[in-house]
Amino acid sequence: MDYQEKQISADYKYHGAVVSLRVDQAQLPDGQIVQREVVEHHGGVGIALEDEDGKFFVVTQWRYAQNMTTLEFPAGKREPGEDDLTTASREIIEETGYEGTDFKYLGYIIPTGAYDSEQIGMYYAKKGKFCGQYLDSDEFLNISRMSLEELTEGIVAGRIPDAKTIAMTFLIKEMKGKNRK
Amino acid sequence: MDYQEKQISADYKYHGAVVSLRVDQAQLPDGQIVQREVVEHHGGVGIALEDEDGKFFVVTQWRYAQNMTTLEFPAGKREPGEDDLTTASREIIEETGYEGTDFKYLGYIIPTGAYDSEQIGMYYAKKGKFCGQYLDSDEFLNISRMSLEELTEGIVAGRIPDAKTIAMTFLIKEMKGKNRK
Repeated sequence: MDYQEKQISADYKYHGAVVSLRVDQAQLPDGQIVQREVVEHHGGVGIALEDEDGKFFVVTQWRYAQNMTTLEFPAGKREPGEDDLTTASREIIEETGYEGTDFKYLGYIIPTGAYDSEQIGMYYAKKGKFCGQYLDSDEFLNISRMSLEELTEGIVAGRIPDAKTIAMTFLIKEMKGKNRK
Repeated sequence: MDYQEKQISADYKYHGAVVSLRVDQAQLPDGQIVQREVVEHHGGVGIALEDEDGKFFVVTQWRYAQNMTTLEFPAGKREPGEDDLTTASREIIEETGYEGTDFKYLGYIIPTGAYDSEQIGMYYAKKGKFCGQYLDSDEFLNISRMSLEELTEGIVAGRIPDAKTIAMTFLIKEMKGKNRK
């Protein structure tokens, strides 16, 4: 069965610094024409940086759209034309002050695919040398470190609802589990 | 440390059927005024429906904003004023034809909290009686069933990037792991 919905037209309602929004006419497999709202986002990258004690750097920060503070793995937006590993290498220094080494790609997630083009690449890396944190002027955050067990506990208890942080925690546990065999 | 960013003003750029978009002026903890783009979404619910053989219903469908077909747990948007369990009970019948019983709440995820207000509630349920599938006129999808092991394999291999499906698979595994103790 062919599920593809074909773009007929696109009408941009907003072009922003973080997202753009367009409303398309699309043709369904049965020929019907429907409206599809699409949020365009360049995508981002999350990084799980592990220190020598098996603890991972996590960021506590205000998430304006959620009106709450969240605890997440460090992450950042892709700059135009940037590949995921370049974003990951840059963002982990900016947010934690530490370089990442031995980057391993964990795959990507689609956070909310029904209306949003964003994909988030996920990396696991080891803590390298300290280079100094340099945050954007509008970033206020606190860095702490947690073990995979503490992260899992927080996720199961509902204290860590961030999607990439949940996916990355469990994917790293799967990877470590496999490596032990 | 107080991280809160306070809303100063809101300027709506788009009001849609699925999302709205506004651009706010916000005040940071240091007094600075910055712009924040916010996608507003009423939120959704994902449901992991397990049959008598321990297999879970999954939906294959076209995701227009991603320009690809995805495999996901059944899910749907909250209608205005609806609570998560009502949405879950309704959506699981609409998409699979089967009623859910013994609903267990698995928590919620924030898919992409930097700019989007969406939260997705997650439920685990057992397959009840067949009532008949009734899809929206613009929904084309295929239903199949997978075990938790098959889901995990697909996630680790990168074939199942949907964030809620990843979170739900691992949360159910955690829950079943705990129950075995």
